[in-house]
Amino acid sequence: MHLLSYEAAGQQRVGILTADKQSVIPLIMAEQRYFGTTGVGLTMLDVIQQGEPALQRIRTIIEKAKTDTDCPSIPLSSVKISAPIERPPKNIFCIGKNYTEHALEFDKTKDANIAVPKHPVVFTKAATAIIGHQDVIHSHSDVTSELDYEVELAVIIGKQGYKISAEDAMDYIFGYTIINDITARDLQKKHLQWFLGKSLDTFAPMGPYLVHKSALPHPDCLSIRSKVNGEIRQDANTKDLVFSIPTLIATISAGITLEPGDIIATGTPAGVGAGFNPPKFLQPGDELELEIEGIGILKNRVE
Amino acid sequence: MHLLSYEAAGQQRVGILTADKQSVIPLIMAEQRYFGTTGVGLTMLDVIQQGEPALQRIRTIIEKAKTDTDCPSIPLSSVKISAPIERPPKNIFCIGKNYTEHALEFDKTKDANIAVPKHPVVFTKAATAIIGHQDVIHSHSDVTSELDYEVELAVIIGKQGYKISAEDAMDYIFGYTIINDITARDLQKKHLQWFLGKSLDTFAPMGPYLVHKSALPHPDCLSIRSKVNGEIRQDANTKDLVFSIPTLIATISAGITLEPGDIIATGTPAGVGAGFNPPKFLQPGDELELEIEGIGILKNRVE
Repeated sequence: MHLLSYEAAGQQRVGILTADKQSVIPLIMAEQRYFGTTGVGLTMLDVIQQGEPALQRIRTIIEKAKTDTDCPSIPLSSVKISAPIERPPKNIFCIGKNYTEHALEFDKTKDANIAVPKHPVVFTKAATAIIGHQDVIHSHSDVTSELDYEVELAVIIGKQGYKISAEDAMDYIFGYTIINDITARDLQKKHLQWFLGKSLDTFAPMGPYLVHKSALPHPDCLSIRSKVNGEIRQDANTKDLVFSIPTLIATISAGITLEPGDIIATGTPAGVGAGFNPPKFLQPGDELELEIEGIGILKNRVE
Repeated sequence: MHLLSYEAAGQQRVGILTADKQSVIPLIMAEQRYFGTTGVGLTMLDVIQQGEPALQRIRTIIEKAKTDTDCPSIPLSSVKISAPIERPPKNIFCIGKNYTEHALEFDKTKDANIAVPKHPVVFTKAATAIIGHQDVIHSHSDVTSELDYEVELAVIIGKQGYKISAEDAMDYIFGYTIINDITARDLQKKHLQWFLGKSLDTFAPMGPYLVHKSALPHPDCLSIRSKVNGEIRQDANTKDLVFSIPTLIATISAGITLEPGDIIATGTPAGVGAGFNPPKFLQPGDELELEIEGIGILKNRVE
């Protein structure tokens, strides 16, 4: 089940991607056709907050659409895709140095015992930084000259939870998407804490789809890669996460209430621009393609 | 102009504190009495977002109430005060090491040239951590044994802004309140980035009042102090901020869009529990009183 947020007449709507990935079924139109009502709500947050009743309707729609030649649908190519969640309840939770090779590429000792954190490193990105698939990343060249990319698997929380055990963690997940944890390396260093260099407007491209967890049963074994202008920069697998998704959810929720729509970006693998010698920072005009197996390809261009 | 959020019949309402600080004028009831309509909205965020029209109504209400013995009012003592803003648009922006003496109390070199940051250190506290005056701070004793307090002047943003110059910064402020940047020192260290140790539920007591900037023309010269069980721990003045309020607003908004209701906690002075030898961490039962000149006293108890 691949869901997406898209713009229609200036408003956010939820669509269901068809199995051939060529078309979008507008959720409220399909609901009206098959149920005579629109009970799920208008936005992705409505869908997530409603949970199982919304999912049941979506499953029914997918089933009926298979044999219904008049099912409402829009060609994917004509849809303006938005970020799956444009405004989460909190800033985006982000995990630093959560792939061993990536932790090493920033560390002068090249010793994993020193470079890899012993506990999850958690920081945030401002919610205002979120943009969608094919939206433009601003280079902010007046404040940074070290613009970098980071492909990450993002976990979307499905229901409120506090002190969630690692064993129960998967029950609290709604689904997954791709996030680009765009970073101004110079600001990240200059301001000591990472938040500012991670949070400039447009620094959180997200999408293109929100894949329900039922369609991605093994989030701990997905190929994950990034390309800049067609050149592969990052190429790894989520099986190499230092701290697993259940561990991250348990660690954060040990003291912080998680809410439907909260986003946890699980960290990036090796191959970021700052890891090359000389560094390969992003330049205006660069085309980014971030791909995670089973989710899709998130494309953005730097202005 | 001292405003407050309070609970009435399970809902958030906005009140105006009377000049004698003994009573609260319920905003919507006063609006109905003097204007025959309720145009300002119900919550503090509504007031802030509406801006000048709301402020004009509030000023008129304050003026009329002076001579109106039938003006609606509730004794302050019978009101359950909430946090001025329970859910800001983003996590709370926080500034680290923004008083020289406080930066030094954490630094082994005791050299201000090393201890005091050259640029503002910005991190965030989760919005879910916010509680109000007289609400209870959870000790989270299962995950921390180093619970600490930090009194801070908090700036509330009044209107959307991007690339705000220091010269224009005061125009973007709505007002001020007190925030207690409660911190689990062990988690702050253990997780490297500060966010997690700063963001546990109830770690952001706020209030009691939101003072409009017109009533606090010199936020850069206010006495600021904290007491634990009546013992003065922090006692300083906002004139000693390393980075001024305009500098903070300019630095953050150089890349991040600020929005009405955004909160910037400007940092804490020396005297936190971790600064004593041996440290004076908070214990269950401790009574906290945080006072800033011209705003009031924020009281909370540790459970």
